[in-house]
Amino acid sequence: MDEFMEAALAEARKGYAEGGIPIGSVLVHQGKIIGRGHNRRVQEGSVILHGEMSALENAGRQLASVYRECTIYTTLSPCSMCSGTILLYGIPRVVIGENKTFMGEEAWLRSKGVAVEVVDSAACHQLMQEFIQRKPDLWNEDIGV
Amino acid sequence: MDEFMEAALAEARKGYAEGGIPIGSVLVHQGKIIGRGHNRRVQEGSVILHGEMSALENAGRQLASVYRECTIYTTLSPCSMCSGTILLYGIPRVVIGENKTFMGEEAWLRSKGVAVEVVDSAACHQLMQEFIQRKPDLWNEDIGV
Repeated sequence: MDEFMEAALAEARKGYAEGGIPIGSVLVHQGKIIGRGHNRRVQEGSVILHGEMSALENAGRQLASVYRECTIYTTLSPCSMCSGTILLYGIPRVVIGENKTFMGEEAWLRSKGVAVEVVDSAACHQLMQEFIQRKPDLWNEDIGV
Repeated sequence: MDEFMEAALAEARKGYAEGGIPIGSVLVHQGKIIGRGHNRRVQEGSVILHGEMSALENAGRQLASVYRECTIYTTLSPCSMCSGTILLYGIPRVVIGENKTFMGEEAWLRSKGVAVEVVDSAACHQLMQEFIQRKPDLWNEDIGV
């Protein structure tokens, strides 16, 4: 696993240790992490701070020209909210830990020209499976079910 | 203008008075506003708190069954982020103040079965035009340009 997916997974694990939903993300610009975050539903009662949203929010206000040179790493396939945000800011590349637990809007992203790569990480998948087995209701809430 | 769009517009004006981007939104469940908010880019340095996101966040964690009975009112056509969030939570109806300033993902929402109504409000439109004339760079930043 490359260093950026490792960093996203470390965020996911941090969220899990806090009692939260273990999904993490990092935003990378020119080989450097400029934002990192994890799902904050439990920790902040947030309905919008998914892992990707949290990484983007923590990166702060960036120029459009910066977003256009970024890659966002996420441990789980991005939902419609996170995918829509990736498109809003014109982030050209998304690297995904796994999409077996949840298949997000990868086809939509690709149709809009975003490069989508799926790492198929067993570590990302196992973490989600363990969490869902323990807290299925919390998981369903996070994906609007 | 109905009372809910009036409330969304009041949020937009509140944001403008704070020096922010004048877009407001309310989330309505069974005839009652359960969340209200406005764009917080300037006020909080937020890249994700568009008006709709702010209204949803302020409504707090709700059951999926509640979202499925909600209407979201927004003074401006929802961007890909906000539209993706509406889809994530299965909100079945969106009422939009205007879409002349910015055409969001209305076609995508409709294709997914969301009822989309455009009020075509002169007051919503004028407020945005006045803002954009004063702060074009801030507006471009908000829509990722």
